[in-house]
Amino acid sequence: MADRRPGGRSERVRLAVLHATLDELGATGYADLTVDAVAERAGVHRTTLYRRWGSAEGLVAEALLFGTEQDWVAPDTGTLEGDLAAMGRELVHYFTTPGLSALPIASISAAFQSPRAAESLRRFYVDRHARSAVVVERAVERGEVPPGTDGPEVIRAATAPVFYRLFISREPVDDAVADTAAHVTAVAAAAGAFVV
Amino acid sequence: MADRRPGGRSERVRLAVLHATLDELGATGYADLTVDAVAERAGVHRTTLYRRWGSAEGLVAEALLFGTEQDWVAPDTGTLEGDLAAMGRELVHYFTTPGLSALPIASISAAFQSPRAAESLRRFYVDRHARSAVVVERAVERGEVPPGTDGPEVIRAATAPVFYRLFISREPVDDAVADTAAHVTAVAAAAGAFVV
Repeated sequence: MADRRPGGRSERVRLAVLHATLDELGATGYADLTVDAVAERAGVHRTTLYRRWGSAEGLVAEALLFGTEQDWVAPDTGTLEGDLAAMGRELVHYFTTPGLSALPIASISAAFQSPRAAESLRRFYVDRHARSAVVVERAVERGEVPPGTDGPEVIRAATAPVFYRLFISREPVDDAVADTAAHVTAVAAAAGAFVV
Repeated sequence: MADRRPGGRSERVRLAVLHATLDELGATGYADLTVDAVAERAGVHRTTLYRRWGSAEGLVAEALLFGTEQDWVAPDTGTLEGDLAAMGRELVHYFTTPGLSALPIASISAAFQSPRAAESLRRFYVDRHARSAVVVERAVERGEVPPGTDGPEVIRAATAPVFYRLFISREPVDDAVADTAAHVTAVAAAAGAFVV
């Protein structure tokens, strides 16, 4: 039986393979990603990868869920607008810094080519929305926004304009874009526009 | 000299080729689009296409600008929120209706693979934002939102959540998503959040 304990051999192999998959995805993109290249990068025999993940698509689908295992925590600046701006700026940094942006861009792109990658991305964002929604809960507690404000929807509204410019309208993105979206969203939330 | 008059032979060829390019893009996606397939679909000799557009990428880059030549007009429902909701619902319809969605999805996807396609998409959205901004101008005239409200930014905010769910978080999209985004944006705009 495989040893799934943290630090066990099976788990070490899994982490090495998923990291290698993400590295390959950032380096080559989804269309050119192969099981063999991941195996070589991970230092794991290809038959192990085929047995456990089945295909390049299987590798990418699991690797894109990897973020849900990381201990990302939403910012806590003291105001809703500050928290939303910090999250937006984190996205701007991640998606526009050379050397950092290749993987996240390839992840968004992979979902156009693979339904399993798209499903993993969806699950990743469900997790991210849930973790981020604490900034809205704190804003309710502080009396900044009314009870019943839809946390995940506030997160979507505050970050969507960054993604929109990056991948739809293909316009330049900088911190000011994140700040404007945070301001607009916080104003609407304070006015009760996100109460469901 | 080529006859570029509307209805002239050169213009008829151009229209046939650009329509064929869009049809091919929707049918096969950018990665598998070939000049030969476009030539066959358009009933135009391939050497004409190579001479005039150079490559499949050149064809797609011009075809993606084709929308800027169409006479799309923003809705006029009598309220900013109504106009924004109508635009959002139009996007939902266009991007989620089987048989209609293949081309717009392939267009967004092509921009990940081709810098020229990305540049065309950018120019298309610049044009679309400018045409849409009239709904904000009318809202200013009606006194719904303060003077100085940034029209294109209102349009981005109202439509970005639809695109976000479609292509980033990969969540389901329906008219309610468009309506919520329109409501949130109209509330923020009325409060002056988009004044620059």
